[in-house]
Amino acid sequence: MTETPYLLTPGPLTTSAATKAAMLRDWGSRDAAFIELNARVRARLVEIAGVVDSHVAVPVQGSGTFAVEAMLGSFVPAGGVCLVLRNGAYGARMVDILTRAGREVREIVEPENRPIDPAAVDARLAAEAEIGHVAVVQCETTSGILNPVEGIGEVVARHGRSYLIDAMSAFGALPLGQGQVAFDALAASSNKCLEGVPGFGFVLCREAALAGCAGRAHSLSLDLHDQWRGFEGNAQWRFTPPTHVLAAFDQALTEHAAEGGVQGRGGRYGENCRILVDGMRRLGFETLLPDGLQAPIIVTFLMPGDPRFVFAEFYNRLGDKGFLIYPGKLTVADSFRIGCIGHLGAAEMRAALAAIEETLAEMGVENGSPA
Amino acid sequence: MTETPYLLTPGPLTTSAATKAAMLRDWGSRDAAFIELNARVRARLVEIAGVVDSHVAVPVQGSGTFAVEAMLGSFVPAGGVCLVLRNGAYGARMVDILTRAGREVREIVEPENRPIDPAAVDARLAAEAEIGHVAVVQCETTSGILNPVEGIGEVVARHGRSYLIDAMSAFGALPLGQGQVAFDALAASSNKCLEGVPGFGFVLCREAALAGCAGRAHSLSLDLHDQWRGFEGNAQWRFTPPTHVLAAFDQALTEHAAEGGVQGRGGRYGENCRILVDGMRRLGFETLLPDGLQAPIIVTFLMPGDPRFVFAEFYNRLGDKGFLIYPGKLTVADSFRIGCIGHLGAAEMRAALAAIEETLAEMGVENGSPA
Repeated sequence: MTETPYLLTPGPLTTSAATKAAMLRDWGSRDAAFIELNARVRARLVEIAGVVDSHVAVPVQGSGTFAVEAMLGSFVPAGGVCLVLRNGAYGARMVDILTRAGREVREIVEPENRPIDPAAVDARLAAEAEIGHVAVVQCETTSGILNPVEGIGEVVARHGRSYLIDAMSAFGALPLGQGQVAFDALAASSNKCLEGVPGFGFVLCREAALAGCAGRAHSLSLDLHDQWRGFEGNAQWRFTPPTHVLAAFDQALTEHAAEGGVQGRGGRYGENCRILVDGMRRLGFETLLPDGLQAPIIVTFLMPGDPRFVFAEFYNRLGDKGFLIYPGKLTVADSFRIGCIGHLGAAEMRAALAAIEETLAEMGVENGSPA
Repeated sequence: MTETPYLLTPGPLTTSAATKAAMLRDWGSRDAAFIELNARVRARLVEIAGVVDSHVAVPVQGSGTFAVEAMLGSFVPAGGVCLVLRNGAYGARMVDILTRAGREVREIVEPENRPIDPAAVDARLAAEAEIGHVAVVQCETTSGILNPVEGIGEVVARHGRSYLIDAMSAFGALPLGQGQVAFDALAASSNKCLEGVPGFGFVLCREAALAGCAGRAHSLSLDLHDQWRGFEGNAQWRFTPPTHVLAAFDQALTEHAAEGGVQGRGGRYGENCRILVDGMRRLGFETLLPDGLQAPIIVTFLMPGDPRFVFAEFYNRLGDKGFLIYPGKLTVADSFRIGCIGHLGAAEMRAALAAIEETLAEMGVENGSPA
């Protein structure tokens, strides 16, 4: 394997050399220089979402799941009822989080290859007045499917419920209706489309809604209201932040802006995705999803029918050539996934395709068509 | 300020250049190379504590507080009663964590400058059979005081209760009776005496006790039992780990071993502490604690009586000279704190003292004696 392989995964992903180099300094977590860095990062996050006037960014230590749990536990009160829109593993995880925290869950369940239908949400909210919150995953990386967060948001707003979005794998690359999606909270992470390194997540919270969340959270560490009050009070994290990861993220946000923000980043990922899908189709592979449902984040390919295609061998041979794809599957369908996000572009995607073609030849696989 | 100041704080702290340089690579979090790194780290942690045969290391994303919350929430069941031994802010935080998670708390409270008395614990456990767990902070960085975890451990074991230790700021530098302290769980972090960068904590858990903790945790993200089952199942983290922080920690553990493990690390910190305390006393400062109660981690100095000593100015001037001390106070006593842990030794401690002496001269402060 090359020393630093390209990561064709939904995160952790390949980051720029400058982003990693930003970690070569130790920071005092309560020193003025670090406080400035955090204020800058928090301000940039609400700018990226186009919600500067209404929302605040609340970073949370840990993985993206920690941020989602902080969002759900801090917004949905004990005794509250949350409708989870589930068409993959990350929707299922929201159900687990809420159940563990003792919140009541209702669900709309769709197969992994079908997006959530806003009309179904409309019907449920009309019928069940006790539902206070609706939670959805924007891009379900289980399959790579894009859910219509704008259409669902209109329905939720019309019914006057609170809208919570897990935008983990899409934030920074896919638009949110230019600030027109009326969410109360949106969770994402340092190491997805913003191309930082992993170590924290963040939740963009409507300030007026967050102000009503005091004492709701089931966990001290994951209490978004307390975390926010901490930042507002002295601009510091309540508990030790991952200082080096924050410094890397600050650099990553500078690069995001230099690339043209959400539009520029999303444009590059869209091209990466097209190159990947077109190239794989030329090799006979088929995608799980039709192009219209595919988010430009990670692509699910059906497992080839050729018995000489053994996935573990394919994975290892590609790794030896310097490309790590996702080693496991989350879908019901027999499939594997290749990501197209991170600090890589057309040249790297073409190189990955060349490595895949070479690997198939080595394995004696004539083409990638499914059984 | 110099580009990379020395951090004389209780963490985040100064790390070695090699530890930071280990972050210059991106890792696939589910790739074999990263899985090996994690297995090595987990094995080393139980070796450092001398509990290889009985305990397992369970890393947890987030700050040290996240690991403490995971420990308390995963071991103390709903309906359980935990006795917290409190003589500082971190003991108080354990009370907050347990209360928020809906566990019943009893307390033994001592002033910040007095260690917990094992005899008092003995009396409480004799009187209150419903107490199932006892939780203590080994080194309370509020004041820098060392609690007698060995003596308390003997009492807890004699009463057959479960012993939970927050060893955050001491683990890796202070011995735990060579594996003779019978704890069920001990929480610490990547960025204290093991000299990694911040981003995760870990809990050393008696395997037999942890096996009984299924379904206890109040939080999905902070469920130690599930996290452990994940590692045992496929050697992977359940949710995205801070890959770069882990790589830095792996290097930091190599340096810890090369220095002679707990004895070597503790020896250097002990010398750092002696140089600091002796030097500050020569300048007229007084410590909050007598030497017999002082852990070699962080030292609390009483605020000087000279009205020309303005702490914020002292802090800033020292920072300009390349030394960041802790900018706030947690004690009741009017005081400030200087840490003596991290990748620094006698030369850096003497340089810090020279900077302090120079700063006092600049401020016109004749000596540091308290009012």
